Amino acid sequence: MEEILYRIVENNRDLAQKGKLADYIPALLKADKNHIGISLKTEEGLVYKYGDYNQGFTLQSISKVVAFILAISENGMEDVFKKVGLDSTDEPFNAFTKLDLPNVNKPANPMINSGAILTTSLIKGDGEEKFKKILELTRLMANNESITFNEEVYLSEKLTGSRNRAMAYLMESKRILSGNVEDTLDTYFKQCAIEVNTVDLANLAGFISSGLPGLEFEGISNKDMMLLVKGLLLTCGMYNYSAKYTIEVGVPSKSGVSGGIMALLPRGGGIGIYSPGLDENGNSKAGLGIIKDLSRELKLNLLYDNSI
Amino acid sequence: MEEILYRIVENNRDLAQKGKLADYIPALLKADKNHIGISLKTEEGLVYKYGDYNQGFTLQSISKVVAFILAISENGMEDVFKKVGLDSTDEPFNAFTKLDLPNVNKPANPMINSGAILTTSLIKGDGEEKFKKILELTRLMANNESITFNEEVYLSEKLTGSRNRAMAYLMESKRILSGNVEDTLDTYFKQCAIEVNTVDLANLAGFISSGLPGLEFEGISNKDMMLLVKGLLLTCGMYNYSAKYTIEVGVPSKSGVSGGIMALLPRGGGIGIYSPGLDENGNSKAGLGIIKDLSRELKLNLLYDNSI
Amino acid sequence: MEEILYRIVENNRDLAQKGKLADYIPALLKADKNHIGISLKTEEGLVYKYGDYNQGFTLQSISKVVAFILAISENGMEDVFKKVGLDSTDEPFNAFTKLDLPNVNKPANPMINSGAILTTSLIKGDGEEKFKKILELTRLMANNESITFNEEVYLSEKLTGSRNRAMAYLMESKRILSGNVEDTLDTYFKQCAIEVNTVDLANLAGFISSGLPGLEFEGISNKDMMLLVKGLLLTCGMYNYSAKYTIEVGVPSKSGVSGGIMALLPRGGGIGIYSPGLDENGNSKAGLGIIKDLSRELKLNLLYDNSI
Amino acid sequence: MEEILYRIVENNRDLAQKGKLADYIPALLKADKNHIGISLKTEEGLVYKYGDYNQGFTLQSISKVVAFILAISENGMEDVFKKVGLDSTDEPFNAFTKLDLPNVNKPANPMINSGAILTTSLIKGDGEEKFKKILELTRLMANNESITFNEEVYLSEKLTGSRNRAMAYLMESKRILSGNVEDTLDTYFKQCAIEVNTVDLANLAGFISSGLPGLEFEGISNKDMMLLVKGLLLTCGMYNYSAKYTIEVGVPSKSGVSGGIMALLPRGGGIGIYSPGLDENGNSKAGLGIIKDLSRELKLNLLYDNSI
Repeated sequence: MEEILYRIVENNRDLAQKGKLADYIPALLKADKNHIGISLKTEEGLVYKYGDYNQGFTLQSISKVVAFILAISENGMEDVFKKVGLDSTDEPFNAFTKLDLPNVNKPANPMINSGAILTTSLIKGDGEEKFKKILELTRLMANNESITFNEEVYLSEKLTGSRNRAMAYLMESKRILSGNVEDTLDTYFKQCAIEVNTVDLANLAGFISSGLPGLEFEGISNKDMMLLVKGLLLTCGMYNYSAKYTIEVGVPSKSGVSGGIMALLPRGGGIGIYSPGLDENGNSKAGLGIIKDLSRELKLNLLYDNSI
Repeated sequence: MEEILYRIVENNRDLAQKGKLADYIPALLKADKNHIGISLKTEEGLVYKYGDYNQGFTLQSISKVVAFILAISENGMEDVFKKVGLDSTDEPFNAFTKLDLPNVNKPANPMINSGAILTTSLIKGDGEEKFKKILELTRLMANNESITFNEEVYLSEKLTGSRNRAMAYLMESKRILSGNVEDTLDTYFKQCAIEVNTVDLANLAGFISSGLPGLEFEGISNKDMMLLVKGLLLTCGMYNYSAKYTIEVGVPSKSGVSGGIMALLPRGGGIGIYSPGLDENGNSKAGLGIIKDLSRELKLNLLYDNSI
Repeated sequence: MEEILYRIVENNRDLAQKGKLADYIPALLKADKNHIGISLKTEEGLVYKYGDYNQGFTLQSISKVVAFILAISENGMEDVFKKVGLDSTDEPFNAFTKLDLPNVNKPANPMINSGAILTTSLIKGDGEEKFKKILELTRLMANNESITFNEEVYLSEKLTGSRNRAMAYLMESKRILSGNVEDTLDTYFKQCAIEVNTVDLANLAGFISSGLPGLEFEGISNKDMMLLVKGLLLTCGMYNYSAKYTIEVGVPSKSGVSGGIMALLPRGGGIGIYSPGLDENGNSKAGLGIIKDLSRELKLNLLYDNSI
Repeated sequence: MEEILYRIVENNRDLAQKGKLADYIPALLKADKNHIGISLKTEEGLVYKYGDYNQGFTLQSISKVVAFILAISENGMEDVFKKVGLDSTDEPFNAFTKLDLPNVNKPANPMINSGAILTTSLIKGDGEEKFKKILELTRLMANNESITFNEEVYLSEKLTGSRNRAMAYLMESKRILSGNVEDTLDTYFKQCAIEVNTVDLANLAGFISSGLPGLEFEGISNKDMMLLVKGLLLTCGMYNYSAKYTIEVGVPSKSGVSGGIMALLPRGGGIGIYSPGLDENGNSKAGLGIIKDLSRELKLNLLYDNSI
């Protein structure tokens, strides 16, 4: 396995330079495009690592998965999906103006920004309390009590988040979003700024794919909850690249604009990848190359059957 | 297996009455909501049947899969995807006005109407010739030489297809669609009117999931082609219900507004279901109930792993 | 007056070369950008002419005014405005996809293409009959029995009119447009190809501004009908340039993509201008310059009061 | 004249009850639908009044005219229209999502909310300073030093203005709007809450139609500035009802959702009307009836010529 990780990462290293750093959050522009790392956790719980596996980076959209799990555990599936849809979309992650149509009354899914802001608003508690719960759950899932958030990235997002603000206020004006909007946005910007490394991501993925042990959900078993998260990631996890990703990789995954990718393997396995150069869909360019190669080599694609 | 099919179909029979016949194609309103049937082909090639399994109905959108396979075999993957996208969408099957945006230059995917009309246009040959190829390929895949098309349904669609006409002419005006528009539409209306029964559908599904034996594709192996079709159906096959369907059923499938559902099982297996009452997304209401129950009972969901 | 026309036309002659011939109707590309002409009819009925005043060109969108007057005279104001709106729009003349919104059920106004196609559909009679009426009314209003249509331009529009076809079929699918769509489109393409010169346009304008003598309208007096046409042209006549035009020119006018402009002066006066080079809004570039200068020199702007 | 005002107001009094109070600003719901008043200032400077002519109400959208005049006087016409369009629109006053299209980079005009927020942002000065200038100019134009703003309405709008916030932040994210967004919104909410009566409105209208004496504008004469404001109001002043209004009334006017209408008569004349019940376009229902009757009776329509 070490050899495979080494080979595949090195084969994709040149893609890393071709990617583009996220430029709409100024603090993310400070990332180093030479950084490239991976961690892979097996069913048995072994973690293989390579490259800059312990380089810190912020969760960004990957935090949406944690917030979604928390929102379901506090509100139950029915109440959450009254407010947010479960539909793949061909629109970019930050699209929202469709919400203004008279016949649209929820964001498409919890993985695009508008749906994620709404998900965060459903977490109970005032201001700081919401964020503390998200951080705690991240630490629990990643099995790392030292995880915290990056103040500089948080402040940078808060300062430049006018598009996220616009969608939040539109949702408020349509009475989709309730509660204090600025509080919700503040929590959202902070959850995006939670800092992890690839080992944390592999653990986080493994926690979900092992059935979210220790958590409880109203009206849905842990196995069905795991299925829900997997299905959500398979169909909506890679933004509008999700359909192509299902064909090319076929592993439930979530990416973030800081360059992280988290992928869920069967029975408690998981992968974390980091490389900050992005492609035009906002996914890590080298990360995507690596996970494609890994999927082919390790036959990870869910669409495969063992006749192949 | 007979017992399972019997039990599951009967458990969903009342849903059939609650569905609504497709009303925008007048000839489809003549269907009998009491008809409900299923065929299931196993890996070993056995076909289990129950109910009105041999009731004829038209392919409608299921024909898009045949046309897609034909278009790829004639043009290669690259040329087809230059013209049509591979993106899931949260818009309904007959949406198309996004195509008018200055930054949009292809239909979202080959399974929505605009993308399917475009796919059909890529099949080589004049007028009748295109349709003959689609019909022949359908017969080959379904292993039934007697398959033909329903003239009444075809004429009904031709007469009332103004929305499909609108999208075709918009694509022509943007120079996305080339060739004779009325010829392409005529072929499209005819392919939708190809009449099959559930045994044909199960065979068709099994043909694809056994790797499309005997067909050849430029620049893509048969196994990768199978993967492409499976992925396309998993992400885009059930219209804008696709994401929910992946979670609830998790089997690559395609539905048609006549009430048919075709589902691909691993290693040559396949399912055909018919029940003409539709839900609000245009999918067979009882058919959806049946395939959900089957998936749960037979553990068909791709997202399952054997720990469950 | 002759001196004024001479001076103003010559001052704007260089604009004519900077304009661009309409390229989406191939036959219009044959126009000669050197042609520039004007006719001005006074209240007293005198017609002053300059330049290529008798050069023939097709009415294009100016024909929408004739069809609108005919539709009102046959159906009454109420029935026409049940089907088409009376709203200025900031969208281009060939926009139509807003019609697909669930809450929109009519084209914005009778001067954009979708609204004009709908207006033409309201004229009674089969196929050729509709067109004959439009042609006859044009001849009557322009006081020129020899006016006919340009077969080449008509066929060219018919062949390349896929965008107009798309909007017509979308309106049919929403049951906004009734009757035979291809017949209506054929009439529409033919009315656009009616060939006139600037004297005809000046007469046509004068006919309207003198109260449409001899015509009768159900439920609306001739004076109110004149007011309606004037108001429609002032607010919607110059496509999405209408608001700026009201400020800069302030004369009820209609332009066509062949390069014609028809302007209504008070009490039976009228102006016809021709210069085929267009600006980015589809209005004659030199024509616009000429009418601006004329408005300023002759104090034609309705917004002026005599204190100025 | 007194008799005319009395008769026309009383004839429209029953419309007042049929109107609906603006419900999206809670404080406006406190208005009394029985209040109905008018002031008419003649060319000679006489002011005729009737009914609740001195009832106070907030300017709301009428304040957009003052802010527009101020923005032009500080920045010049060219700089203002680089940022905001001059196009009539068929979309409602609070529409804004078209701004998200890749090919749209300015609000349609300064009279819809997005364009007005942008106009306010162009006024120089920090926070309170902008508002002070708007208030001072309002006082000057209305010739009433005692005009101030309604704190309750201001706070109510500030609290419930999420839709205006959404559009402001979308414009900021597209770098259309610069400066401190919350400051601009605060100024905007405050200018909307400036309290006047119909005499003030008639004076304000008269000030503009007499050529804005005493003000100076860069690169545009006072007469042309007057023409610009008149044209802007004629084409965009009554929201998406503007085209119909031009035909039915034909007087440059601006309405506000508090129920005020300001109309500009030639040569220093002006009208102010107040009646808080609104129609579905957000215009005063009785106010519209009154101005229609007045226009007919006094032949105010700009489209009339004296042959009628």
